[in-house]
Amino acid sequence: MNAELKNDRMIRALLRQPVDMTPVWIMRQAGRYLPEYRATREKAGDFITLCKTPELACEVTLQPLARFPLDAAILFSDILTIPDAMGLGLSIVEKQGPQFARPVRSKAEIEKLAMPDPETDLGYVMDAVRLIRKELDGSVPLIGFAGSPWTIATYMVEGQSSKEFSLAKGMLYEDPLTMHKLLDLLTRSITEYLNAQIAAGVQVVMVFDSWGGALSQACYAEFSLDYMKQIIAGLNCDADGNRVPSIVFTKGGGLWLDDIANAGSDAIGLDWTMDIGDARKQVGDRVAIQGNLDTAVLYSNPDAIRQEVARVLASYGQGNGHVFNLGHGIHPGINPDNVAALVDAVHELSLPYHQ
Amino acid sequence: MNAELKNDRMIRALLRQPVDMTPVWIMRQAGRYLPEYRATREKAGDFITLCKTPELACEVTLQPLARFPLDAAILFSDILTIPDAMGLGLSIVEKQGPQFARPVRSKAEIEKLAMPDPETDLGYVMDAVRLIRKELDGSVPLIGFAGSPWTIATYMVEGQSSKEFSLAKGMLYEDPLTMHKLLDLLTRSITEYLNAQIAAGVQVVMVFDSWGGALSQACYAEFSLDYMKQIIAGLNCDADGNRVPSIVFTKGGGLWLDDIANAGSDAIGLDWTMDIGDARKQVGDRVAIQGNLDTAVLYSNPDAIRQEVARVLASYGQGNGHVFNLGHGIHPGINPDNVAALVDAVHELSLPYHQ
Repeated sequence: MNAELKNDRMIRALLRQPVDMTPVWIMRQAGRYLPEYRATREKAGDFITLCKTPELACEVTLQPLARFPLDAAILFSDILTIPDAMGLGLSIVEKQGPQFARPVRSKAEIEKLAMPDPETDLGYVMDAVRLIRKELDGSVPLIGFAGSPWTIATYMVEGQSSKEFSLAKGMLYEDPLTMHKLLDLLTRSITEYLNAQIAAGVQVVMVFDSWGGALSQACYAEFSLDYMKQIIAGLNCDADGNRVPSIVFTKGGGLWLDDIANAGSDAIGLDWTMDIGDARKQVGDRVAIQGNLDTAVLYSNPDAIRQEVARVLASYGQGNGHVFNLGHGIHPGINPDNVAALVDAVHELSLPYHQ
Repeated sequence: MNAELKNDRMIRALLRQPVDMTPVWIMRQAGRYLPEYRATREKAGDFITLCKTPELACEVTLQPLARFPLDAAILFSDILTIPDAMGLGLSIVEKQGPQFARPVRSKAEIEKLAMPDPETDLGYVMDAVRLIRKELDGSVPLIGFAGSPWTIATYMVEGQSSKEFSLAKGMLYEDPLTMHKLLDLLTRSITEYLNAQIAAGVQVVMVFDSWGGALSQACYAEFSLDYMKQIIAGLNCDADGNRVPSIVFTKGGGLWLDDIANAGSDAIGLDWTMDIGDARKQVGDRVAIQGNLDTAVLYSNPDAIRQEVARVLASYGQGNGHVFNLGHGIHPGINPDNVAALVDAVHELSLPYHQ
């Protein structure tokens, strides 16, 4: 599979096949910590225009790859493209994050929502995928992604970012059937959306469950994980009939790793709070693991970064199935030179683990 | 012990002794969700004056007990009294939270800090304890508390609340010895502070590790848990020579429960993300467990609250060692009537588990 890829370490690691060194990419690698990203964003005028202009989305997707020998590109986009396409009116307010002009908070409002058509309503995403694939020219695989149903639902109900999820969780506890209706619609929409990304050319798909970890154990299984399982089960093969490797990442999901490893994805994302060696023991050979350096290590210096990279690699240990990443997206204030030190350290220090 | 207590359910549960029904109290039970609290706070002018005026701190401590048949009172105070007494200049900025005028960010600044004297520098806390004990007149036990060294250190270094702890974690990774110096000073200060609270009359002590869960597993053990162990080991007995039950609560600490259960405290706090029955299986008969209803359940209605209370009680199961609480502090927007429903449900529905 992916015979045309010049660097297929990421794909091989996701499928737990041997690699020469541990592949590495960084969540939000195309982002504000890069001055060239800030320049393109400035040119676009605002974040949403940047997402919706395939040429600019392609430009920022490729920026980190020009700086660092990363083993994957990730589509520049946002997890809220789907509710935006549903007509909720997305804007990004400086220093406050995403806001919806028309949040949905009642059964009636939710019943009025319709699934977006990926190729028409979200065509700008598919155009970006096709353009990026062309520009990458097989150098590294392109990761496509979507938010999880629960994570997207929290924004749709709250209308913005939230710490306590009083409205979304209030609905979950008070009127679970209505919450399930919303999650079901999102699940079907996300599955179509990811399949359209696959058809357009993404070579890996990742589901970001940023807020699943805010749920109780019982609610996580019922309101987040079950829907992600349906999405994974509904993914199509690529144009050549090959399975597209998938990653499920629940931030704060360390307690439920055993269940997540049974969700059907090829790999699971691991945040920085759990020891990756312990996680590997738990999941065994069911899935590959992506993670899990504490993003805050990048606030220190190259020596400390090297030491912490060594610790994560040693904890994972010998053999296949590890994709190196941070345990969380990179922060805007981080020095790009420290990212260079991280990427080099992963490649260099991982060699002995693959002999 | 505590022969003078009319209601000793809380103490008995912490010591895993039989009770007639499961005791319940609520983190931040004296807080903004109560109109009478908001009135007293208004009268005080600001939050810090409220903390520093023993008569007013006593007044708000007792307010929730006048409304609900709670099984414990908790001293009204703040986890940042110690750095305030160290001279960092605490203020509470509306909608932004605590801020320090003089954060500490270098070895030199940390080396200049001195331990506060609990009876002189923090005398207002001890006066409040003595006054509350007098007013409670043995009706229920009084809980004293402190923040954990790591949690207090994050505020001292960041100068305010933080999501990413870039400065505190940057110091931890870049200059661990300096961070250890700060944590050691805080550990000694907190131990003296809690012992002064015990001498003044608190009957239970709790250590709030609000931000331990933001650390990696290795860092949690080294920079948070080890210091809490030292605090627990340094606690004095009460005036009658009896052990004062202690609770350690790391929010987001579910992954490390086994280690926390070995830290020497009588009980551990559990946030809402972990199933309490699973937690009980893990800790066995080493410690009691306090928790762990999802605070957001209180945004629903009395029927849903009753159902979720029943679920937590059933998960804990038959027998001793459970103190019911939320998994997190109560939020300002919650309806006090829902708290009444919660407290009643715990008492009523727990009866069969103690027969």
